[in-house]
Amino acid sequence: MVQIGLLGFGNVGEGVHEILVKNAVRIQERCGQPVRIKTALVRDLSKPRSSASQGISFTTNPDDILNDPDISIVVEVLGGENPAYSLISRALKFKKHVVTANKEVIAKHKETLFSLARDHQVCLSFEAAVGGGIPIIRSLKVGLAPNEIEGIYGILNGTTNFILSRIENDKQEFNVALAKAQELGFAEADPYMDVSGLDTAYKLVILAYVGFKVNITLDQVAYEGITSISRTDIESANQLGYTIKLLAIGRRDNAGNHVFKVHPTLILKSHPLASIQNELNAVFVRANGLGECLFSGPGAGPLPTGSAIVSDVIDTIFDFGCHSRRHVEPPAKSVVPLQSATTESQFFIRLTVADSVGVLETVTRLLGKHNISIANLIQQKNHKDTATILIITHHIVESEMRAGISELEKETCLKVDSVIRVGFSDSIE
Amino acid sequence: MVQIGLLGFGNVGEGVHEILVKNAVRIQERCGQPVRIKTALVRDLSKPRSSASQGISFTTNPDDILNDPDISIVVEVLGGENPAYSLISRALKFKKHVVTANKEVIAKHKETLFSLARDHQVCLSFEAAVGGGIPIIRSLKVGLAPNEIEGIYGILNGTTNFILSRIENDKQEFNVALAKAQELGFAEADPYMDVSGLDTAYKLVILAYVGFKVNITLDQVAYEGITSISRTDIESANQLGYTIKLLAIGRRDNAGNHVFKVHPTLILKSHPLASIQNELNAVFVRANGLGECLFSGPGAGPLPTGSAIVSDVIDTIFDFGCHSRRHVEPPAKSVVPLQSATTESQFFIRLTVADSVGVLETVTRLLGKHNISIANLIQQKNHKDTATILIITHHIVESEMRAGISELEKETCLKVDSVIRVGFSDSIE
Repeated sequence: MVQIGLLGFGNVGEGVHEILVKNAVRIQERCGQPVRIKTALVRDLSKPRSSASQGISFTTNPDDILNDPDISIVVEVLGGENPAYSLISRALKFKKHVVTANKEVIAKHKETLFSLARDHQVCLSFEAAVGGGIPIIRSLKVGLAPNEIEGIYGILNGTTNFILSRIENDKQEFNVALAKAQELGFAEADPYMDVSGLDTAYKLVILAYVGFKVNITLDQVAYEGITSISRTDIESANQLGYTIKLLAIGRRDNAGNHVFKVHPTLILKSHPLASIQNELNAVFVRANGLGECLFSGPGAGPLPTGSAIVSDVIDTIFDFGCHSRRHVEPPAKSVVPLQSATTESQFFIRLTVADSVGVLETVTRLLGKHNISIANLIQQKNHKDTATILIITHHIVESEMRAGISELEKETCLKVDSVIRVGFSDSIE
Repeated sequence: MVQIGLLGFGNVGEGVHEILVKNAVRIQERCGQPVRIKTALVRDLSKPRSSASQGISFTTNPDDILNDPDISIVVEVLGGENPAYSLISRALKFKKHVVTANKEVIAKHKETLFSLARDHQVCLSFEAAVGGGIPIIRSLKVGLAPNEIEGIYGILNGTTNFILSRIENDKQEFNVALAKAQELGFAEADPYMDVSGLDTAYKLVILAYVGFKVNITLDQVAYEGITSISRTDIESANQLGYTIKLLAIGRRDNAGNHVFKVHPTLILKSHPLASIQNELNAVFVRANGLGECLFSGPGAGPLPTGSAIVSDVIDTIFDFGCHSRRHVEPPAKSVVPLQSATTESQFFIRLTVADSVGVLETVTRLLGKHNISIANLIQQKNHKDTATILIITHHIVESEMRAGISELEKETCLKVDSVIRVGFSDSIE
């Protein structure tokens, strides 16, 4: 029998337990032996537990797990940086295999932790840290192992995707959609981590490590959230044939330069990522052998996350007694990603202008001055004496775009409402 | 160094070689040693080979591979049942690990071959046999290992999907679309295997084995192809908000009964599978922990297939010296799937009727007699003295549906043009 020590017994911990109990027969068949949770670390021993958790020994002392020779795998589902980081480190030093769902700890401490795992010849697995239940980490590590990865484009945060879907489909404003997400449990009381793009940025750091085999830090990811995205932006994008998603983008150009960034992005409605709705996650990968492929599924929730965690547990058990390279991350290269300002993109611009002769000419002239050429333009009259102009530009270096926008902002006859990046392509995005 | 013996050096064999050469650095980093093709079995030694294949020793004698102690992994890319089956069997008996792309051999001989692999403690891998480059086999075997699989719905044949996409998007008739597919190399000169649904049925037998852990034979899969699908059918489906795909369906109901079938299926345009275009493949999986997830990507082609094969090679190398359970398929249960006639489905019916009073009443009365109730109906006048009636039924047992259709066919005032199954749901499909 394989016995697990669980660090944390919140929603995700309960999901792990539920999967292990519900699918015990299948898991035992696969592993050749039963798998059970022996001990769970909790904050409050007096909190009532469900009857299904009978047989688990609860403790407030992590040493009851780390020092227990019967426990071979430690599953960390505490979340947050501390004490998760120190407990994972200690578990590895105690030669326990570790499975974690903790994006923050992996993103911040990957080099130290993978080095510890190598030194102590144990597995450190983290499928659940990115994309919830979607087996994206395993697919990048093994299924796509023969490929050089050229691009990774992910919808990695269920909360923001839910909010954007609500705004688009139910014509709600941002704050209403956020409140609904909180009511349904898709968003935290403090939504900063999600809506700021920080959560997505952590996950991109991990995908960069696994996919591109490069070691970047959070401050090398330019990230923006969705708080500035209005219902009008999404409706305008729809008019032009696009939707708006919070996208994590990692890519490498032919010269070997990397770009890593997170920002709201206009995506053509015909692209597979455009159809990823509500709390779903998806990762679109471009690889030099396989080509383009898409993985999508539930990005969060106790059971999907529990499924990813238990798949790591099973995969760890497969490797008992045979220290395989499969679970050992070799040291990754450090790179200096390109600054976002130096990369090219198409842009969506939404302007409110005085509804008078010559304004459109002013706009095109000022943009032209900065070599910003227009791919698509709609001008439409508003109720009052104003008009709205929607523009999709051709590809332009971001710093030039900003200079052009600054110039527009000096004009009193118009107001720049929104500037949002558009779509993606590997060569010039 | 790991040395491979390649059985076959056609398009896919060249793809394997190209991946190994192009991404040699990445593959070596991952495996801890270089990987190369030592010997390739070919039919004709005098055929000119590309300069890139220098360094490979070509032979017409399989013993030059099977008897070579330097060769640890045999990759079979001959296709077809024989001599592939006997060569794979011999390789396993010689304790070579085997990687194959051969859906027919795996579908027909899986029990014998996996038993040989178990007995000789070697790996037998077949990622490329289903879904081309998409890592679906590995995802079912490991990533979704903690789940009971409830449903698998796959677009598994690139040729038929290409033809259906052409008919839909370019308004071509079946034969024109087929000729185009042949011209582009997506369809064989003899397209029977693809358009009859047989290729998809082989792949479903494999997915049943890996996903549901059941051992079924080809004659337990009711399969239909796309030769009867006309441009008018697809246009009519579009009118009702659907598209038509050749779908492999495997599912298990709550009572533990399995259904396995392949047929053209109307799919709501909003479903992720509806957006899988041209030669792409996709697999939609419903699992009891993870929920619903989608995998899509290129289903064929030398490089995508080569990528899947080399991922199996790398995964095999990970397990060198540690006979893990990962690559060993345990004996699967035999099941008796439900007969297609006893299962429920919604149906699409297209009728041409005399444009006269009372015909619609006749149609609804005859269907009602067999408890076939109508969910959606469009009647439209044609150029001549006829009208077209498009019907989507509610769920109905297939045998009752057939009885109702037989009754309609007796009427002289109407003609049944098409009857096609609609959509999917797990409980009642």
